[in-house]
Amino acid sequence: MARTGKISNAVIRRLSRYKRTLEELMNQGIERVSSGELSEKIGFTASQIRQDLNHFGGFGQQGYGYNVRELYAEIIGILGIDRTYKLVVIGCGRLGQAIANFLGAYDAGYEIVGMFDVNPALVGMESCGVKIQTASELPAFLKSNDVDIAVITVTKGAAQAVAEDLVHGGVKGIWNFAPIDIQADGIPVENMHLSDGLQTLVYYINHPV
Amino acid sequence: MARTGKISNAVIRRLSRYKRTLEELMNQGIERVSSGELSEKIGFTASQIRQDLNHFGGFGQQGYGYNVRELYAEIIGILGIDRTYKLVVIGCGRLGQAIANFLGAYDAGYEIVGMFDVNPALVGMESCGVKIQTASELPAFLKSNDVDIAVITVTKGAAQAVAEDLVHGGVKGIWNFAPIDIQADGIPVENMHLSDGLQTLVYYINHPV
Repeated sequence: MARTGKISNAVIRRLSRYKRTLEELMNQGIERVSSGELSEKIGFTASQIRQDLNHFGGFGQQGYGYNVRELYAEIIGILGIDRTYKLVVIGCGRLGQAIANFLGAYDAGYEIVGMFDVNPALVGMESCGVKIQTASELPAFLKSNDVDIAVITVTKGAAQAVAEDLVHGGVKGIWNFAPIDIQADGIPVENMHLSDGLQTLVYYINHPV
Repeated sequence: MARTGKISNAVIRRLSRYKRTLEELMNQGIERVSSGELSEKIGFTASQIRQDLNHFGGFGQQGYGYNVRELYAEIIGILGIDRTYKLVVIGCGRLGQAIANFLGAYDAGYEIVGMFDVNPALVGMESCGVKIQTASELPAFLKSNDVDIAVITVTKGAAQAVAEDLVHGGVKGIWNFAPIDIQADGIPVENMHLSDGLQTLVYYINHPV
């Protein structure tokens, strides 16, 4: 696909939204969609949508719209979610197990290959079909397994040290749920801040549109 | 506080980020910060930061910077998180319990007052100090309790119907974790899509910066 210029983080984030909407259209048996129709469904302006999709070479045809299935396949390919990724989960409390479970239920492209916790009460337990190992086994595990992504759900205080072990162990990216912006040299980190969404909601409760 | 013009959703979303950074600065005992220093910490440009904060009347002083504690208090006030909100959790599987637990551990402003599930194996169990009730009791509960926010972690197929019950019951806002954009007449909804962050991460794994 022909890329034009640098793609901003904001555009990349919007791609997931496009993907979901296109999935919905496919489920409804819809084969073509115009930027105007996408606009109504997604809430971005039609011009924003055309601009976003032009970044990737522009697959729309004037007066004809986008082929839903092709556009979907392109976006999947651009994001790189057309293959399977191997994940480890560090921190297997409720949140770690919930995320592992969520990925198992809704996303085909992620395979949980290891789960780790420091809590002896959790070690040895099976969660989402994977036996929870003690955290001290993580470095050896990373040495003998090719892991793509680590999900961190440990406490705020422990997260940065875990991230450093993960970088050292050759993990390719970190999805962090500890409520702190962690740093990882040379690999991408996606710091999730669950409460941000809740704070936005509270704002709109107090300032009705 | 003096507001200038309509505040965009993007600015509101950035406020949580400012709040976190200011919290960090307060924890380090730092009393004043310039837009340049904030820029280094947050990653937005100094001009973006000044523009964002100007929306709320502009508390910075030329050559003097922002008073960390005052700016923090203003942002807390703008978001409306200077008071406590009453929450119910609908869906008490791992994710529902994880979110209740997360809010209990990290956020003082949210009180879980009710938890509901359809699964008889969960009903009667205590989670985060609250006894899980059967979902059919939700309408009566909402009638006799003043609930601000409902957290939805039910399945994709059940989420929209739950949202309608919540609107009918007078809930003021919905924080939705079911992987579908739900609609709720007249109240704000924050649709969380956990996988979006993971998809962004996958993009950056495949396209190193």
